[in-house]
Amino acid sequence: MNQPALSRSTRIRATPYTARAEAAGVQGYMVYNHMLLPIGYTDSETAYWHLREHVQIWDVSCERQVEIRGPDAARLVQLMTPRNLSRLAVGRCAYAPLADEYGGMVNDPVLLKLSEDHFWLSIGDSDVLLWAKGLACGLGLEVILREPDVSPLAVQGPKAETVVARVFGEAVRDIRFFRFAWLAFQGHPLLVARSGWSKQGGFEIYLDRFDLGEALWDAVWAAGQDQNIAPGAPHAIERIEGGLLSYGGDMDLAHNPLECGLEAFCELSQPLECLSQAALRRVAQEGIRRRIMGLKIQADGLPPCLEYWPVSGPDGETVGRVSSAMFSPRLRCGVAIAMLDQPFFSEGQAVWVDSPDGQYPAQVVSLPMAD
Amino acid sequence: MNQPALSRSTRIRATPYTARAEAAGVQGYMVYNHMLLPIGYTDSETAYWHLREHVQIWDVSCERQVEIRGPDAARLVQLMTPRNLSRLAVGRCAYAPLADEYGGMVNDPVLLKLSEDHFWLSIGDSDVLLWAKGLACGLGLEVILREPDVSPLAVQGPKAETVVARVFGEAVRDIRFFRFAWLAFQGHPLLVARSGWSKQGGFEIYLDRFDLGEALWDAVWAAGQDQNIAPGAPHAIERIEGGLLSYGGDMDLAHNPLECGLEAFCELSQPLECLSQAALRRVAQEGIRRRIMGLKIQADGLPPCLEYWPVSGPDGETVGRVSSAMFSPRLRCGVAIAMLDQPFFSEGQAVWVDSPDGQYPAQVVSLPMAD
Repeated sequence: MNQPALSRSTRIRATPYTARAEAAGVQGYMVYNHMLLPIGYTDSETAYWHLREHVQIWDVSCERQVEIRGPDAARLVQLMTPRNLSRLAVGRCAYAPLADEYGGMVNDPVLLKLSEDHFWLSIGDSDVLLWAKGLACGLGLEVILREPDVSPLAVQGPKAETVVARVFGEAVRDIRFFRFAWLAFQGHPLLVARSGWSKQGGFEIYLDRFDLGEALWDAVWAAGQDQNIAPGAPHAIERIEGGLLSYGGDMDLAHNPLECGLEAFCELSQPLECLSQAALRRVAQEGIRRRIMGLKIQADGLPPCLEYWPVSGPDGETVGRVSSAMFSPRLRCGVAIAMLDQPFFSEGQAVWVDSPDGQYPAQVVSLPMAD
Repeated sequence: MNQPALSRSTRIRATPYTARAEAAGVQGYMVYNHMLLPIGYTDSETAYWHLREHVQIWDVSCERQVEIRGPDAARLVQLMTPRNLSRLAVGRCAYAPLADEYGGMVNDPVLLKLSEDHFWLSIGDSDVLLWAKGLACGLGLEVILREPDVSPLAVQGPKAETVVARVFGEAVRDIRFFRFAWLAFQGHPLLVARSGWSKQGGFEIYLDRFDLGEALWDAVWAAGQDQNIAPGAPHAIERIEGGLLSYGGDMDLAHNPLECGLEAFCELSQPLECLSQAALRRVAQEGIRRRIMGLKIQADGLPPCLEYWPVSGPDGETVGRVSSAMFSPRLRCGVAIAMLDQPFFSEGQAVWVDSPDGQYPAQVVSLPMAD
């Protein structure tokens, strides 16, 4: 039952690219933001090496946008995130943890600043729109909130720039990391960002015309033929090694951004009109009691990590949990993301991972993982 | 690809009963509230007749609870729903559409009143907790909001009372429809309600101890052996005939409760401190422009309804969409739930359904469907 069947209905939305993903031989789906996320066109190891060496086309429509616009848009966005957005320019992306008044993580989107009063939050798997709506209604803010018809298509891997430049023109090469430009596709301007849920480089094309989905897929596909393009998806091994967190699995409302290792995205010194700042300052002052870290697991292979695996300390006591784990064919060990109790979250610490296949010794490492 | 593989991870939570569902031979899952919903242990027609004649055990843990307690709990709950809760007694359940300040449907839970300042909302598939948190924070309400460790197990079908009474005692027989009692299981009190997502009668047991899940399943299973108990799940044909709506598929934020045929659950005359009342009064005054209705489709069989199917009027114009459809072996026609434009939502109206297998004539009927 590692790959049981998915029972579908209109409640789980198809994407502009679903027909193409199926024609390309997709083996299965995750369900993410009430939408299909195609996963797996080949074995995991082949896909891993391919992503690091070539270029892949990913249907990540499930990265839904929460659109926030209006006179109070900037204020609402800042209330939602402890990241200081005061100097963020139009045309920039920003990874922005969202946290409630207790510091609990609501999501960890990439924020796109379209204009001074217009934002998209490109979200992980939770209904951020409902939180934003509740806040805006309760505070009487003047904003318009909705999920627009926007379905990102990611082009990821070292050859992505060549491929995307063929579709959108040489201007693509001038887009710096975590910036975006509006570039024409069939005469229609699309937001093209240098970003994506891998560490191999690439772009995300924010398609805002569902009906153009198959034409966009086909254009990227054709442009990548001599670059060895393949259909792909966010890759579990690659993103664990890269320290990219999965909201709802690696962390959720029960965890604050400091525990998630996201202190670089939390403004704690300058006063900010932000729901979570006071709570996070208290946490920072008292010190965190647990933290997300990487693990390198001494194993020749690992079973699928479908439920949290306990992590034990030297005396056999439970000191944390593994939330994501895979065997890395490159590092030749298991790699994992774990939430570990104090004092076990320090680099080099020895711990033991209790997988369904048995207990393995592991070493705590920082994220992203060094080779 | 009607039954593609589901790619699992810790982000899609297992339930207290998952091991039992797998041992019972579950064929697949829906993903609902970030959790596994086991679907399909046998063919659809066998399950349909069995549910109407015998008794089934359903893992509906994915009906997650939003717990609202504290001095402002009753006020917050009333803000969220247009249903008048002023006379709802402790110990009662109430089907309560949730709607925002524009009248848009946020969810349609069954509300359980545990005490004057303590409620559970047993929700459909959206993160109601985030909406409630946003409202409570924005309005400064004194409430505690969380998702408790509660995983409903449903026992549904005409023989359910016999089975549940064997597990919890004869007091079960005194629980009237949409009421609940606290009854002991292994010395631990569990909330047992006469309710469930079918029209065949039955109970929902709100297990609040994850570790007791397998024992509870086993006790119900053992008690049902001579009643022909079988593992089951919410059944598409049965719930369409019964007019039970599926949030996210049949309706969502774009629709208001009046359009969803839920006027009986909307207080429009007595003034209510409720976010949606003003908007719904305007809608009622102007008259709705579309409405959910049933359809009986003249077909000998139907393909799976994975995406919305257009509905056409006599002149070939699009007049709505089908959101759920199945062939009913009992009514010997297709049965569907559709959102239809004015004036096509009147009973007896002839329309045409454009399925992937071709166009079929259909007749508009009220919900629940008469035989």
